Amino acid sequence: MAKKKQLVGNMLIAQSGGPTAVINQSLVGAVLAAKKHGCIKNIYGSLHGIKGILEETFIDLGKESQATLEAVANTPSSALGSVRKKPTPADCQQIFHVLQKYDVRYFFYIGGNDSAETTHIINEEARKAKYDFRCFHICKTIDNDLRQNDHTPGFGSGAKFVASAFMGDNLDNRALPGVKINIIMGRHAGFLTAASALARVYPDDGPHLIYLPERPFRMTQFLKDVKRVYKERGRCVVAVSEGIANAKGQAIAALFIKETDSHGNVQLSGSGALGDLLANEVRTKLGISRVRADTLGYLQRSFPAVISENDAKEARAAGAKAVDFACTQYANGSVAITRKPGRKYAVEIKRVALKSVAKETRHMPAKFINKDGNDVTQAFIDYAAPIVGPLPKIGRFKGKPVKQIK
Amino acid sequence: MAKKKQLVGNMLIAQSGGPTAVINQSLVGAVLAAKKHGCIKNIYGSLHGIKGILEETFIDLGKESQATLEAVANTPSSALGSVRKKPTPADCQQIFHVLQKYDVRYFFYIGGNDSAETTHIINEEARKAKYDFRCFHICKTIDNDLRQNDHTPGFGSGAKFVASAFMGDNLDNRALPGVKINIIMGRHAGFLTAASALARVYPDDGPHLIYLPERPFRMTQFLKDVKRVYKERGRCVVAVSEGIANAKGQAIAALFIKETDSHGNVQLSGSGALGDLLANEVRTKLGISRVRADTLGYLQRSFPAVISENDAKEARAAGAKAVDFACTQYANGSVAITRKPGRKYAVEIKRVALKSVAKETRHMPAKFINKDGNDVTQAFIDYAAPIVGPLPKIGRFKGKPVKQIK
Repeated sequence: MAKKKQLVGNMLIAQSGGPTAVINQSLVGAVLAAKKHGCIKNIYGSLHGIKGILEETFIDLGKESQATLEAVANTPSSALGSVRKKPTPADCQQIFHVLQKYDVRYFFYIGGNDSAETTHIINEEARKAKYDFRCFHICKTIDNDLRQNDHTPGFGSGAKFVASAFMGDNLDNRALPGVKINIIMGRHAGFLTAASALARVYPDDGPHLIYLPERPFRMTQFLKDVKRVYKERGRCVVAVSEGIANAKGQAIAALFIKETDSHGNVQLSGSGALGDLLANEVRTKLGISRVRADTLGYLQRSFPAVISENDAKEARAAGAKAVDFACTQYANGSVAITRKPGRKYAVEIKRVALKSVAKETRHMPAKFINKDGNDVTQAFIDYAAPIVGPLPKIGRFKGKPVKQIK
Repeated sequence: MAKKKQLVGNMLIAQSGGPTAVINQSLVGAVLAAKKHGCIKNIYGSLHGIKGILEETFIDLGKESQATLEAVANTPSSALGSVRKKPTPADCQQIFHVLQKYDVRYFFYIGGNDSAETTHIINEEARKAKYDFRCFHICKTIDNDLRQNDHTPGFGSGAKFVASAFMGDNLDNRALPGVKINIIMGRHAGFLTAASALARVYPDDGPHLIYLPERPFRMTQFLKDVKRVYKERGRCVVAVSEGIANAKGQAIAALFIKETDSHGNVQLSGSGALGDLLANEVRTKLGISRVRADTLGYLQRSFPAVISENDAKEARAAGAKAVDFACTQYANGSVAITRKPGRKYAVEIKRVALKSVAKETRHMPAKFINKDGNDVTQAFIDYAAPIVGPLPKIGRFKGKPVKQIK
């Protein structure tokens, strides 16, 4: 796998899947690194991922000024445009054909596990055709569900948004008590939902309950939990993953939508359905009047004002490292963020095999989830806090009661 | 109305209605001002607005340290707790009785038009009983719908959140094109929804359409508008006020919920319903596959990390000014934020009569809404920009196309 001779040619980079707040840091990190390597001639960016390769719509990233590159790096969401398309075998052959046509010898694909898979297939095509070629997958996903990684670029900022949102929402719920349910992104992995726990400052702060896709969701248990917290505290803030599923693995949201459909009524595939369903259950079954649900939605991955500094730094380093690896050390691979042992937070970016990241998703390890499956553990807090970095400072009154006059 | 002799006694302050990100600035501004006036003995805070007065649950704000006061000032949501209760005439008499019992001679109520009304009624009770008494209403509302005010504390930060959210969401929509609909708070006034327009940086940036409660909402026109924008740009970002209503003044959200109810199905009084309804209409009537809706929800009023500096400053000044007015100049009133004439943004806080703020809400003036009723005007942008202050800087590539190889 070690690279022998220097390979000279053009570079192509693309972005795929759901955007993140720092995905452009990886893009700019890669472009700036490429400028330092003599083996890379032109630096092309493909518009909308592999769609841009198939349609040969590239822009010349080598022509962008330093100021533009820095401005883009600090801008959320995929600056090259993204795509949800999964290439067919015919697409992969066509992609490989285009890469050859444009003398692309260095290919970088920023994305999740599907993008790692695509990169792997394209690399196989090159290998079969004996085309001398370097390619790297650059990790990103707010879901934090890539194998081989301690965490992935995008998660830290997504988690910072979620924690900040719960911090404010907990204060709101404290001022006007009731039950508040927030639905968080992450279809198969609960990391982002779990990050809501970082919002807690005082012992009575919410979220008071956290439901993750890694544990089966039982409506009766959920209602029992909410009832208990509401009785104890007079209020309850709940974090729920959009991906919660029953013991059979059926998504609660999907079950609800199906049910509504079968009645021949308005289809509710919009994002508010799961929150509304849970709020309605609490309202009707527990008889609590003030119940609200919010679905945090797309803000989680693209909000510009709440970016984790470590996340931004690591995303840029991941992009740069992929290019350095491809130019000097490895023919292909994926860059993975690993955590160095020791008390102080530090990461190392390593090269791992493309296949080891592709396809499968990583779930929350058992040690991060409490026994009852309705909260996270201190181990999760210790894991996530440095990735997210400092959160807003909040305060509350000591609140010395005034003696009542009889 | 001018105050003649110095009145010595205790002060009571309370917070009411929906929290804002800067409502505690007003509270702390009032407490710090009160400490400077010899006429005020104890400084009491009532827990959960008038509920705390009726139940005589007060805390001693005079005992809070400077550090705690500053920490609370910078914390969103009502630190004293809030309440949605509208007092009955019997409540008002009881409130007045409690105020007398605790020798409260200075009463301050931070809230919207309902709180101004409550303050007015309590003041009337005092006047009838010939009880020497000073009371002020301190304005707040993210909806920005108080009469007499150029704008109200809380709006600037709510608007900054909405503009930041649209900034990120527009980038997200640009990366993965489709139709995106965001539902914004403000039942009767469209100011907060209108603030989404501040997100625009480049000429093709969203929101591309803005629907306000001040103009009748017609589904057919909405679909026509979306179709046109989507055809032109291949994508469409829409800002919709939760309060949109048809020509008869019936709220679109309520109409939908009623309809669902009448079929005997799951009740959808949750917040996702309106967005899901509109998304479903676009999906089914226009045949566009990628349609998403988010309801920005409670984050708009309590998100901690996105606070307008001017808003925080003005909120604090409003609280301080109410106390200064009550101690030195006026027996009662409401503090109103007015804008000084001239090119440079500057405000003045004036005393206005309680009745002139109470009850009725203020709507967006016609000059802020475009002819078609689906966007705002430059006049609105000029009005709102200094209240919101600087927004995140974003950038995009120049994007020089790479010449296609035949």
